[in-house]
Amino acid sequence: MSLTHDQCAALDQVDPFARHRALFDLPTGVIYLDGNSLGALPHAVKAAVAHCVETQWGRDLISSWNKAGWINLPARVGGLIAPLIGADSDEVIACDSTSVNLFKLAAAALKLRPDRKVIVTEAANFPSDLYVLQGLAQMVGDVSLRVVDAGELPAALSDDVALLLLTQTHYKTGHVHDMADLSARAHVVGALTLWDLSHSTGAMPVDLNGCEADLAVGCGYKFLNGGPGAPAYLYIAKRHHAAFRSPLTGWMGHADPFAFRDDYQGGVGVKQALSGTPSVLGMVALEAALGLFEGVDMAALRAKADRLGDLFLDLVEQRCGGMGFEVACPRTGRGSQVSLTHQSAYPIMQALIARGVIGDFRAPDILRFGMTPLYVGFADIWDAVEVLRGVMESGDWRDERFQVRGMVT
Amino acid sequence: MSLTHDQCAALDQVDPFARHRALFDLPTGVIYLDGNSLGALPHAVKAAVAHCVETQWGRDLISSWNKAGWINLPARVGGLIAPLIGADSDEVIACDSTSVNLFKLAAAALKLRPDRKVIVTEAANFPSDLYVLQGLAQMVGDVSLRVVDAGELPAALSDDVALLLLTQTHYKTGHVHDMADLSARAHVVGALTLWDLSHSTGAMPVDLNGCEADLAVGCGYKFLNGGPGAPAYLYIAKRHHAAFRSPLTGWMGHADPFAFRDDYQGGVGVKQALSGTPSVLGMVALEAALGLFEGVDMAALRAKADRLGDLFLDLVEQRCGGMGFEVACPRTGRGSQVSLTHQSAYPIMQALIARGVIGDFRAPDILRFGMTPLYVGFADIWDAVEVLRGVMESGDWRDERFQVRGMVT
Repeated sequence: MSLTHDQCAALDQVDPFARHRALFDLPTGVIYLDGNSLGALPHAVKAAVAHCVETQWGRDLISSWNKAGWINLPARVGGLIAPLIGADSDEVIACDSTSVNLFKLAAAALKLRPDRKVIVTEAANFPSDLYVLQGLAQMVGDVSLRVVDAGELPAALSDDVALLLLTQTHYKTGHVHDMADLSARAHVVGALTLWDLSHSTGAMPVDLNGCEADLAVGCGYKFLNGGPGAPAYLYIAKRHHAAFRSPLTGWMGHADPFAFRDDYQGGVGVKQALSGTPSVLGMVALEAALGLFEGVDMAALRAKADRLGDLFLDLVEQRCGGMGFEVACPRTGRGSQVSLTHQSAYPIMQALIARGVIGDFRAPDILRFGMTPLYVGFADIWDAVEVLRGVMESGDWRDERFQVRGMVT
Repeated sequence: MSLTHDQCAALDQVDPFARHRALFDLPTGVIYLDGNSLGALPHAVKAAVAHCVETQWGRDLISSWNKAGWINLPARVGGLIAPLIGADSDEVIACDSTSVNLFKLAAAALKLRPDRKVIVTEAANFPSDLYVLQGLAQMVGDVSLRVVDAGELPAALSDDVALLLLTQTHYKTGHVHDMADLSARAHVVGALTLWDLSHSTGAMPVDLNGCEADLAVGCGYKFLNGGPGAPAYLYIAKRHHAAFRSPLTGWMGHADPFAFRDDYQGGVGVKQALSGTPSVLGMVALEAALGLFEGVDMAALRAKADRLGDLFLDLVEQRCGGMGFEVACPRTGRGSQVSLTHQSAYPIMQALIARGVIGDFRAPDILRFGMTPLYVGFADIWDAVEVLRGVMESGDWRDERFQVRGMVT
């Protein structure tokens, strides 16, 4: 598919998600292809956060726990996420960070399968997921991690496996695991599944219940646009609610948190997975951001993301051929991102950012571009590739200032 | 001490903290005596949060991790808390909730004392602290909790104790433990100490290093005024940095978080206690709120809180005698709060709140009033007791609407 800039602009005219772009406060002069790392700011969030700070906190003070329903924010935000991931609203709750939620659910899974001591996961999984498992194994003592390449996952599922933990959409390559197939394989050997949906939710349809997934976690600040360090969420399939036990038993997860009893008694269902007091500012921002998904057809959204990604790869092939780029993501069955490799990936990304095209670099040699379909258009993609071509042709990525390694996220 | 309203107003005139009151956005018509549950809104927080949302997130997007220093917020905020608790700045870091931090430190303490399997704590400690220990014990399996009354703590410290976990200032009564004495007693038997400072920090001088405390946690939304669900913090004495191992190993605690390596390698010192991505909005609010403590003499601040509390108790005795109130807090050696008991405590507190005096109720029969010395004045206390007298004399606390049990925090 080869398109001119005008043809891309015409596609934007008929894009059913064109109206969503206006719901975001996007800076001018920037093409933002990093919504898979930090989603852009929805206008609605500004008012919601200001109201929370100035009125709910400032005027109503402590009474806002009841009056503004702060106490119900974790369940309310979870209820907004549930339809995006194929879950019932009482199976999802917002709380803590993705890493803390992974720890809670992986530890609980070991208790649900007490005779099994193996956790299977993928090598080169999102690092924090691996770190959480390593810390858990060290703490528990008699648990071993079986870390294998993606292709070897089915063979790794033996009947000593308690849990299969996978990130559905790979953070670097955008490869998407077949959740239904791998969940079924895990269940055949009696293992549970725990899915990290951080790079899926909000970008593509996810069907936890349809795939008979057991447990899941995900991030609020990527495709859900909840803001930097937004609360994460977790999912527990209803069939596990009765036996589920969180190791992180804080007051918010108590059946009667305001009775201040000495003995812990877990709350009903997914609520027992709460621990301490959540960030109310973060919850309010995420709640407002989730409002943008109301009425969004997730299949159509993913179709647009696929078209954006295909266009990007086609245009790179056509306009940046022979410049040393290789495609590092699947051509089909991909998340809302594309990845290229280049031996000078780091300075090239810095030069792109200096010209207003914001993607990110992932070690050792990956340029990653998020195709956030709610606010990225087809003409943006054309323009971004044109800037990439300009960076390469001018050679200005060789400039010294682009070689300095800083922190990226 | 018996004072008239005019005498109280005169005390406010010469109060060295009078200027701080103007730094808070306090609602009119309200006397707020619940800053020990949720601190009031500092004006500086409004601008800081709006700037974070609109400029750092909205305009600069992902680059704010470097440009706005989001990545250093946990250490920066920890560094602002350190002088308030007698710690060095590299011993304190802001992250997660108090409950999650308690879990991390208590679990790490067990690893630091691997041959010991007992954790000692106080019955009627802050419930979430007890819940965290119960969950940890259940997860680890071979740990037992020794929960005793305050007076029996010294006797409970035998040489099988790994950890003594105490809340320094009691959430209901305001009793303050002698940190130096109990830490010394714990060390004599080889146990570590973990202090929950939630009801101390920001209200009184705390001297962790001077008391040779080992570990501590605390809350950002009480006397530190960081806003609802503000990030919590934790302290690890420098002598434990090398051996400390967090069980909650997330990417933010990695020595090189942006290298995205598969293997976890904990960061230097207290940074390794970080887990997932923190709430940036919450951190920014807390950072701005902590600015109000710059130059504050904590001993003088506590002296004011003591005077406020003494005044409250004296006036209740003088003006509300024979109305059924009993003092439920120490007359000396008390945190920044006073507590009364009354058999109708719940409806009385509701009637007080309806008249604009905001304290809180703690089951079964406690009326709790926070004396937040940065923004509560002596005339406020006089007025609050006068309202209490009015509620009792009018008998309007018997009104049906005040009997309905709602949630309180």
